[in-house]
Amino acid sequence: MDRQEITGFLIDLDGVLYTGDTPLPGAREAMVFLKEQGYPYRCVSNSTRKCRATIAARLRKLGFDIPERAIFTPPLAAVRYMQETGKHRAYLLTIGDVDRDFAGACTDDGSTAVDYVIIGDAGDKVNYASMNHAFRCLMEGADLIALEKDRYWMAPEGLSLSAGPFVAALESATGKTATVVGKPAKAFFDLALHDMGLAAERVVMIGDDIITDIGGAQAAGMRGVLVRTGKFRRDALETSEIRPAAVINSIGDIGTIL
Amino acid sequence: MDRQEITGFLIDLDGVLYTGDTPLPGAREAMVFLKEQGYPYRCVSNSTRKCRATIAARLRKLGFDIPERAIFTPPLAAVRYMQETGKHRAYLLTIGDVDRDFAGACTDDGSTAVDYVIIGDAGDKVNYASMNHAFRCLMEGADLIALEKDRYWMAPEGLSLSAGPFVAALESATGKTATVVGKPAKAFFDLALHDMGLAAERVVMIGDDIITDIGGAQAAGMRGVLVRTGKFRRDALETSEIRPAAVINSIGDIGTIL
Repeated sequence: MDRQEITGFLIDLDGVLYTGDTPLPGAREAMVFLKEQGYPYRCVSNSTRKCRATIAARLRKLGFDIPERAIFTPPLAAVRYMQETGKHRAYLLTIGDVDRDFAGACTDDGSTAVDYVIIGDAGDKVNYASMNHAFRCLMEGADLIALEKDRYWMAPEGLSLSAGPFVAALESATGKTATVVGKPAKAFFDLALHDMGLAAERVVMIGDDIITDIGGAQAAGMRGVLVRTGKFRRDALETSEIRPAAVINSIGDIGTIL
Repeated sequence: MDRQEITGFLIDLDGVLYTGDTPLPGAREAMVFLKEQGYPYRCVSNSTRKCRATIAARLRKLGFDIPERAIFTPPLAAVRYMQETGKHRAYLLTIGDVDRDFAGACTDDGSTAVDYVIIGDAGDKVNYASMNHAFRCLMEGADLIALEKDRYWMAPEGLSLSAGPFVAALESATGKTATVVGKPAKAFFDLALHDMGLAAERVVMIGDDIITDIGGAQAAGMRGVLVRTGKFRRDALETSEIRPAAVINSIGDIGTIL
């Protein structure tokens, strides 16, 4: 790692600190190391099924000492986006308790007269009625915000559709283009950088996805370090045009990039 | 109408013979005229919520004397397609009694090991579980057949999503491209022409959709006549690069194009 000295980190969660319900070897020690050395960091995850508080509680259960305010997810970016535009009427197509992150920031009277349709990985909340309601909101003038646009993920019961295909369905139906507020959107990374008060070139993003994490971080002006854990696949790295600043076996090796 | 003498017709249903539950003025008389004059015809509809027998019964109820064998819908084209490929395992994502048109032509043991995912305008059958099952079938090797790819239609309760956006979702999730077997696919028109035993240049397609009906018919070698009923909109005609052979007020004026 050359160029400017590293003064902070963005860290992906799933596949970097843990997989499933198991912390990755060396991950807890790495986070303790950052804390002891005084490096600021933010955890940036595309998780859109859990609110920030629930993610923090889960991390504590897995043995990580990470404060809630250090966790950044797409719903927080969406709320920031809404605050900037001054519009707050939104139809939320999400699942789990992620709507808690939107509490106070948006209103929904059940009509199709809203400013935004906000869609995340909504699982069983996706059905003809909810998709049709979203469609009608968009046709009546709402804009589309995608919390993420991933195609699918590996659920315990098998490959499962994420938000991306349903975003594509609504884009196809309406001719509108979604504003993506999660990784790899620059606005998302900028939000976490701004919260730390650090310039992009002083910060390293550590993740397991060559496109979303490394490509996204580089596009936002950061360096990207790929870990060989989580969804890492050697052929994805070798066939990609994206070149990480470094590739490490796991976040346990974070000391080697400093 | 110049060029070769007209010896047969393809006729769209909704918006040409009726709208909602009401026959259009002159439509019944036009069909009687064709019968009495001995013109062969086939009714070609992108309807994918009703089987052929139900459509025929509905037409009878509206006062039309149209035999079931003169009705062509995308499920019949899909069955023909499957027979040609010799593959018959299929996951059907449809609603209503349209599955009756597939009876005997396809099997489904509930597993993801199928040859085809066949998707129509499936209404409330669209949910996360059914879309995920379709997705997994496709990821395990199935090909995608779209009965139609319309974006939306005007249901009594308001604009409603048709099959197209959900086809787009599955295409986006898997990187596969659907084979469309309904209008405006050439294979669909060819099937109806073949059934009449007529060459395309002797046949006129009458419809209310400048793209699906007129553009599709022209691409299949026929002449296309647009009616000013159903979904006809003057600006759609004026802004389109597609030029119908003629535009008539309604199918009641069919005599004027002969």
